[in-house]
Amino acid sequence: MASGDLPTFADVQAAAERLRGHAVVTPLLESPLLNEELGVRVLVKAEALQRTGSFKFRGAYNHISQLSQAARKRGVVAYSSGNHAQGVAAAARLAGAPALIVMPADAPAVKLNNTRAWGAEVVLYDRDRESREELAGRIAEERGLVLVPPYDHPLIIAGQGTGGLEIAEQAAALGAEIDAVLAPCGGGGLISGCALALAERAPRAAIYAVEPESFDDTTRSLAAGARQRIRPGVQSFCDALLAPMPGELTFAINRKLLAGGLVVSDDEVARAMRLAFVHLKLVLEPGGAVALAAVAAEKLDCRGKTVVVVASGGNVDADTFAAALSRAADG
Amino acid sequence: MASGDLPTFADVQAAAERLRGHAVVTPLLESPLLNEELGVRVLVKAEALQRTGSFKFRGAYNHISQLSQAARKRGVVAYSSGNHAQGVAAAARLAGAPALIVMPADAPAVKLNNTRAWGAEVVLYDRDRESREELAGRIAEERGLVLVPPYDHPLIIAGQGTGGLEIAEQAAALGAEIDAVLAPCGGGGLISGCALALAERAPRAAIYAVEPESFDDTTRSLAAGARQRIRPGVQSFCDALLAPMPGELTFAINRKLLAGGLVVSDDEVARAMRLAFVHLKLVLEPGGAVALAAVAAEKLDCRGKTVVVVASGGNVDADTFAAALSRAADG
Repeated sequence: MASGDLPTFADVQAAAERLRGHAVVTPLLESPLLNEELGVRVLVKAEALQRTGSFKFRGAYNHISQLSQAARKRGVVAYSSGNHAQGVAAAARLAGAPALIVMPADAPAVKLNNTRAWGAEVVLYDRDRESREELAGRIAEERGLVLVPPYDHPLIIAGQGTGGLEIAEQAAALGAEIDAVLAPCGGGGLISGCALALAERAPRAAIYAVEPESFDDTTRSLAAGARQRIRPGVQSFCDALLAPMPGELTFAINRKLLAGGLVVSDDEVARAMRLAFVHLKLVLEPGGAVALAAVAAEKLDCRGKTVVVVASGGNVDADTFAAALSRAADG
Repeated sequence: MASGDLPTFADVQAAAERLRGHAVVTPLLESPLLNEELGVRVLVKAEALQRTGSFKFRGAYNHISQLSQAARKRGVVAYSSGNHAQGVAAAARLAGAPALIVMPADAPAVKLNNTRAWGAEVVLYDRDRESREELAGRIAEERGLVLVPPYDHPLIIAGQGTGGLEIAEQAAALGAEIDAVLAPCGGGGLISGCALALAERAPRAAIYAVEPESFDDTTRSLAAGARQRIRPGVQSFCDALLAPMPGELTFAINRKLLAGGLVVSDDEVARAMRLAFVHLKLVLEPGGAVALAAVAAEKLDCRGKTVVVVASGGNVDADTFAAALSRAADG
């Protein structure tokens, strides 16, 4: 598949075949007490339980497993705030490829430590002063490594979409008809891949991208019909969702298949982390909790409906997690 | 089944039939990085993801679903520090039975709140000054309610054993041969039920009860060959595992089927809670983490082996959880 081609449903199915036995079929969790509290039947796709603690392993493995022997031997490079980093590091190890990851120096410790624990070489950069794309591109060229992009590649999108296939199957096994699916959105790889799967397998479901309010580029882009960039210098609690604008491929899919975008505040995210802690016993990182946050904060009228939220990751430091639980309790 | 009969493997199978579609088939989780850190292949039976946040729903539903229409209409009573409370409350609601639960006034807030949220009436008692058994017995008699005992009943033991059946099936699906299974032990319902299942379905596995070091009654009873009682007044971090002596039925099974008992300290438990947080994204309460703690603290020589640990519950207050993570980081 050429890197500029739009992936299709068949590509998601092919990715699911490749991932069988390598990725975890993560459970679709449900808590009757949470449902009652929110007035919504909420099915939680627990990607925090995925290998490496986030959905990112899916796309990374789908990409790296397709590289030639020679390319694998030279190795791969990626840039990431931490979840794609771990996904690439773990997938590269399975494929026997060395991995070098460019990560921001202020990434959560759990993400830095685990990326190294998977055997990757980590190169740190300063988020405010250096371009990670340029740095990674230069290293790729110098060392003859293949760049594994974080979202805007058909194999990455198709890999992330395997979670969407599982959602459709698992909801059907519960006898649940899905009204809406909400997934976190940074560059858009997860939501666009899931949309490809769900458009075929749960066509009645309305699909929404959820973003932190300061990084609402996809929400604004969907409204405008063209890719918008967030203004520089903004911050968010959701370190996994800091992509400054939608991908070209991801947006081409999302503008066709999504019902829209929703945004949530940091306080709403903290509350969702607490809800997941209390009712689901699931550790969610801020970026992994935005979809649940959107339901809990009624960003969409879901009362009485069946809604799937993708809980995309759980790589969070203990201090940040404890602070979020405490912030939500005080709120 | 009479309440004094020892349950059998067939009773566990019957319980599994009854629980189908009501209990969650909880995942058997694995983290390659955790395996590397411990030098053991650790398969984690994530009962924190069970309905009500602990395995207790299994036994409670197996018991209550067997009551007559008339008995259900009158209702059930139970005494519990909180996990059996929620299990009984949720199972009673499914069965259309009112539930009254006698709980210690100092139980974790999450356990008190969720027991009430499941619709049960909660009667508080003072752990140091009142006997919960007497109080519950008196209420049962006055109101004509059926007492659902926390562990020493064949239907409760058989229900808890359904987790053991799942462990054997899930490990086989992974192609894993289990060398040992470690499960938390309070009164012994979980471990004895699992032992019934595993003696049939994974007969090579050595089965160990794990207890907090101040509540090591089963460990000492197994060593002595007769039931021992802990001395009064001791304390433990593991609020779910404070039964003062083994049950009659549970011990009759455990002395035949277990390889022994292991004990862990509060610091070792805190470390296991942190390991589950970092590597599994699973919220474990102290009592739910003792089996993982025993492996992590090398209470058994497991190097190079495949070990299943039952992570039996995740009902813990945010402050206690944060303190445990921080205590483990400092240790």
